[in-house]
Amino acid sequence: MNHQPARKLDVAVLGATGAVGQRFVQLLENHPWFHVVEVIGSSRTAGRPYGEAANWVLDGSPPASVSHLTVKALEDELSSPLVFSALPKDAAETREVELAAAGHVVCTNASVNRMVEDVPLLLPEANADHVRLVEIQRARRGWRTGAIIANSNCTAMPVVMALAPLRPFGVKKIFVVSAQAVSGAGYPGVASLDILDNIVPYVSGDEEKLETETLRMLGSLDGDRVKWLDAVVSASCNRVPVVDGHLVTVSVELEARPSLDEICAAWDRFRGPQPVPQLPSAPEQPVQYLPQIDRPQTRRDRNAGSGMATSVGRLRECPLLGYKFAALSHNTIRGAAGCSILNAELLAAQGLLVDFQPLAQAQSVL
Amino acid sequence: MNHQPARKLDVAVLGATGAVGQRFVQLLENHPWFHVVEVIGSSRTAGRPYGEAANWVLDGSPPASVSHLTVKALEDELSSPLVFSALPKDAAETREVELAAAGHVVCTNASVNRMVEDVPLLLPEANADHVRLVEIQRARRGWRTGAIIANSNCTAMPVVMALAPLRPFGVKKIFVVSAQAVSGAGYPGVASLDILDNIVPYVSGDEEKLETETLRMLGSLDGDRVKWLDAVVSASCNRVPVVDGHLVTVSVELEARPSLDEICAAWDRFRGPQPVPQLPSAPEQPVQYLPQIDRPQTRRDRNAGSGMATSVGRLRECPLLGYKFAALSHNTIRGAAGCSILNAELLAAQGLLVDFQPLAQAQSVL
Amino acid sequence: MNHQPARKLDVAVLGATGAVGQRFVQLLENHPWFHVVEVIGSSRTAGRPYGEAANWVLDGSPPASVSHLTVKALEDELSSPLVFSALPKDAAETREVELAAAGHVVCTNASVNRMVEDVPLLLPEANADHVRLVEIQRARRGWRTGAIIANSNCTAMPVVMALAPLRPFGVKKIFVVSAQAVSGAGYPGVASLDILDNIVPYVSGDEEKLETETLRMLGSLDGDRVKWLDAVVSASCNRVPVVDGHLVTVSVELEARPSLDEICAAWDRFRGPQPVPQLPSAPEQPVQYLPQIDRPQTRRDRNAGSGMATSVGRLRECPLLGYKFAALSHNTIRGAAGCSILNAELLAAQGLLVDFQPLAQAQSVL
Amino acid sequence: MNHQPARKLDVAVLGATGAVGQRFVQLLENHPWFHVVEVIGSSRTAGRPYGEAANWVLDGSPPASVSHLTVKALEDELSSPLVFSALPKDAAETREVELAAAGHVVCTNASVNRMVEDVPLLLPEANADHVRLVEIQRARRGWRTGAIIANSNCTAMPVVMALAPLRPFGVKKIFVVSAQAVSGAGYPGVASLDILDNIVPYVSGDEEKLETETLRMLGSLDGDRVKWLDAVVSASCNRVPVVDGHLVTVSVELEARPSLDEICAAWDRFRGPQPVPQLPSAPEQPVQYLPQIDRPQTRRDRNAGSGMATSVGRLRECPLLGYKFAALSHNTIRGAAGCSILNAELLAAQGLLVDFQPLAQAQSVL
Repeated sequence: MNHQPARKLDVAVLGATGAVGQRFVQLLENHPWFHVVEVIGSSRTAGRPYGEAANWVLDGSPPASVSHLTVKALEDELSSPLVFSALPKDAAETREVELAAAGHVVCTNASVNRMVEDVPLLLPEANADHVRLVEIQRARRGWRTGAIIANSNCTAMPVVMALAPLRPFGVKKIFVVSAQAVSGAGYPGVASLDILDNIVPYVSGDEEKLETETLRMLGSLDGDRVKWLDAVVSASCNRVPVVDGHLVTVSVELEARPSLDEICAAWDRFRGPQPVPQLPSAPEQPVQYLPQIDRPQTRRDRNAGSGMATSVGRLRECPLLGYKFAALSHNTIRGAAGCSILNAELLAAQGLLVDFQPLAQAQSVL
Repeated sequence: MNHQPARKLDVAVLGATGAVGQRFVQLLENHPWFHVVEVIGSSRTAGRPYGEAANWVLDGSPPASVSHLTVKALEDELSSPLVFSALPKDAAETREVELAAAGHVVCTNASVNRMVEDVPLLLPEANADHVRLVEIQRARRGWRTGAIIANSNCTAMPVVMALAPLRPFGVKKIFVVSAQAVSGAGYPGVASLDILDNIVPYVSGDEEKLETETLRMLGSLDGDRVKWLDAVVSASCNRVPVVDGHLVTVSVELEARPSLDEICAAWDRFRGPQPVPQLPSAPEQPVQYLPQIDRPQTRRDRNAGSGMATSVGRLRECPLLGYKFAALSHNTIRGAAGCSILNAELLAAQGLLVDFQPLAQAQSVL
Repeated sequence: MNHQPARKLDVAVLGATGAVGQRFVQLLENHPWFHVVEVIGSSRTAGRPYGEAANWVLDGSPPASVSHLTVKALEDELSSPLVFSALPKDAAETREVELAAAGHVVCTNASVNRMVEDVPLLLPEANADHVRLVEIQRARRGWRTGAIIANSNCTAMPVVMALAPLRPFGVKKIFVVSAQAVSGAGYPGVASLDILDNIVPYVSGDEEKLETETLRMLGSLDGDRVKWLDAVVSASCNRVPVVDGHLVTVSVELEARPSLDEICAAWDRFRGPQPVPQLPSAPEQPVQYLPQIDRPQTRRDRNAGSGMATSVGRLRECPLLGYKFAALSHNTIRGAAGCSILNAELLAAQGLLVDFQPLAQAQSVL
Repeated sequence: MNHQPARKLDVAVLGATGAVGQRFVQLLENHPWFHVVEVIGSSRTAGRPYGEAANWVLDGSPPASVSHLTVKALEDELSSPLVFSALPKDAAETREVELAAAGHVVCTNASVNRMVEDVPLLLPEANADHVRLVEIQRARRGWRTGAIIANSNCTAMPVVMALAPLRPFGVKKIFVVSAQAVSGAGYPGVASLDILDNIVPYVSGDEEKLETETLRMLGSLDGDRVKWLDAVVSASCNRVPVVDGHLVTVSVELEARPSLDEICAAWDRFRGPQPVPQLPSAPEQPVQYLPQIDRPQTRRDRNAGSGMATSVGRLRECPLLGYKFAALSHNTIRGAAGCSILNAELLAAQGLLVDFQPLAQAQSVL
């Protein structure tokens, strides 16, 4: 597959100096469609070269192409048609709508707009058709080119990825207990004194998000809104001493009572609808089942599919709900920046980024 | 309270050089009733002074009083009436019965006899009355002074401790997901390459044990056998990078639908029946509820009550089963050696250790 | 030894809600001489009960006796004659002198006054005679009862404790490389993203402190000032993923060329001058040599002597300087709060705390 | 650079199922010159498919192309002209010589032959000319095509890489303290109970290796033997809780007393002699100086140059030896398998692998 458009689209990254912002910058280096030309930081970092202003917390160093960009302030005007947002909630609340109203497409990792009825909570493999909310959003708000598209909480990601292929079996009850990496809390985030040789059975806000976002993402488009999946979720969240990767222990009730083999087969063949498998950041196999008795493991499997695949394993019977298994996604790639980028790719492929058409022709999700 | 008997009882420790064996030796130092006079190791260590033979994996150094003891071989005759066993399963299988038949009381941490009908799976605060199986065991097997008493799997411990006070509310369904310390696997046990910056969603055999031992421990004595609690358990076990302490995330269905306050009150006043609160190793408050939003935490709470108390926290509603909470016990103290010692103390207090009566008079559990 | 005075002395803790402040509070619980009656925090915490205001980062919970104290603000007047300070540098700079001028004895862990000529940088076992600087300080500054006494940087502690007994051999050159726990940076201190699965070869300011404080502490009192040890120190500091305990790798040149056995003997018999061994917080054996090939180890040996002893091991020849070994001290006990408390105990024993004499009579350090 | 020869050379990996063996297999996947066709394991694994027999401890899964190979036993005859060895010392001792005598070129990570006079202890950037010992070895032993080439201890690697560019300044004294990853001990290697929240100031045998191998590697070829560098090394080794990456703290005395800038310039321009920079596994910049105050850091810099570059930082004055700095190499890539592969590439480029000439013509190291 060669997805190289004639020219790349200019993009901006909001909150670019933070942990998720850095992941955006890292993943967009050498992206075939997008090109980072604007980085936006806090008032503390604005005006300085990105390479100096960002306390780079990922491995290695920031990409040279971005290092020399001067960090802009949050209120500065932007020229890029496409904006990725890693803003904290408060900053996101007003700025993202302002930018969308000004004509920018904003693909955001912030939680503030996720449950707004006309904002797609998009996970391309699972609910690419929700992208049609963009048109409804534009019509309702009187925006011509702008839009807001959200991705989900990083812990909901492995749950939704693992359950999306099982929807045909009738998902009714979901029990989730997480083991979440410290990078999920940003930087400086979790103090080392709180997590070395320790497990913390609490992650602020994540249980509520898991119990709602999961159902919205797995829901179906019904006219101009998403009809949530008719199921119940119980979530318990733990912080654990690992750098990256959110592992979830899941029990699930499935109405159709499929065999374990049928479930594995559903995971195996799951690809998401066209044009998702053609998108540059889409993993070849979105959900990969690991047959070993002790996998997926956080460190060993978080980078599967360049951090965009979800690994599942240990599928077995659950005495209470019928089925249980473990699932793992990389929380700052698939669970944050990577998903936002994939969402933007889907918009581009659908012709929803005005004047930018990377594929031969606009693709229909239906 | 002063529990000092006229003389201390001689005790032996089987498997004394292993990780749990060392914990027995450590906890029995300065014990008011018991005195370690025999340590039994493998053929590799037999004949050497304990201080040299044991690769001490706990903090500091072995107690001086035990360091100079010569390690005995497994087949050597023992003089101690009371024997604590930290043997691996295979070695335990034949040797524990031999020793009991020869008149020794064997309090064991091994799993092999836990589900044998006439062996009490004893957790004094939760089921002290099960100790009466000792008499049935002796009668049935024709033993006069010997007996085998088991303690449970270390991960079942925080579950049973937290649920025992809730039995009056009618425990019906139990969801458990664990985050287990590496010390639960003994020494050398878990390779560091398998657990640094990693979570392993599998602990061999523990899910099965949790789904059965929990119900036997919470069951009631019915004539000459234990009638298991009529409930269903679903367990998922994870190994995590912490040294000591097993944290469990629990959801539970309670028939009586108590309020959250009623549950906290039940935990708060739980003490176990007499004479359990008088036993030297019994924690003042067996189950302590922590009101902070992010507790219990493994490192900060595992040593509560000198490692013998169970900490619970985060009690809240569960959309699926009604209630959820977190619970934590120290896995090699409360969950292994400490519980065996408490079990032996209960036997002593009940007059079941022949010729040794530490309390003023034999105590009745009923 | 029974060091119980007729009444306990009231003490205050400055910076009581921080990580080292909490350690002061914890160590002073049940102290035979001192009694915490005042806790001083930041403007954010002032006015609230300590138990609520302090985000307790140590194990378990704050002592009940202190939990109910209302946190005072930094500028509030204090009634306690003895004040322990865990203030950050900036706050310490002016407030400690003000309090001393107002008549309080301030035993401080802050670095700001450590190198001031008339302030003793006190480590009782190593340089108890430096306490006489208190009289010089009082005379020079016109203070009658007040004084400032400092303890050293936490990483210098194991170096000085290990080298003090070797001074008779003529210490000339010292190489130190540290592996420092995260608790040395306070709370929140080191971000978990910076230290999980990572080593950071830099600790701000500590190399400079090691290269100077070590020599001042090992120096001798010469009239009204300390004559530094005539030696050269090269220090390199690393932050490592351990909770508590600073381990140092040391090479040293000794003029007298003692045998390895002579060095071990010097460590073994080292006790510090009278009355240091009688002080309540003094460890029975300040420097303990561990004969095992792989000790001291951070987790296993940091609590030796209740965290007040220094463990040394691996003494062997160094091809460059003659001798090398490893040494370990608990950084927030021996290396911070515990040392300050021991310093205060020495002052009390010397009759330098006005109207408080815990021992039968004032003791002379010389 | 395009190093693609007409056909790839068949290679075998000895000890292929162990931790370093797995790294060989991983690094050789898609190698432009070499092709793994034989994997040799223990008697336990022989006869089984590699994918099943190897307990894969690296991330992800073994390469598909090797998974289906049947593991051979150590004594089996081999067909590959080039053999990489990750054998443990005992197995290496006899088998490597046998294979070389039988005509195979053996590039080994084992320590047993490293100090043998006619075996090159090869580190291409630092001492490519030592490769001429292969001809001396063949002549002396009467081997026509076979040879043994060793790479060094993994902890010596960052020391030699950092000091090689400084040889022109006259390296005289070297002080090294290491912080070594657990993967350096193989699998299962270090028990998690020995390293979680712990530092162990001892790594069996490594101090001796550092104090000798370093000098041999930095030595010059003098007729038919290596004349060691005339310098003194003092090494102290620590095991730390990180997965991969050996960080060393180095002090060094340089006769010529260069400025810090001159040292940085020497590192910056260091490439090794031709044809080393053309070899497929050679990093673009073998030694990279990081200007940040707190780098190199183990997790963030170990993968520099795909794990083949050495990162240095914190160059500053040392009060004792003149200069100090930190250096870091990936211990199982640059420090083990990766170096062996680079050594083999050098042999190939030099025409020392009979009938295999990947570059246009044989290259001279001098």
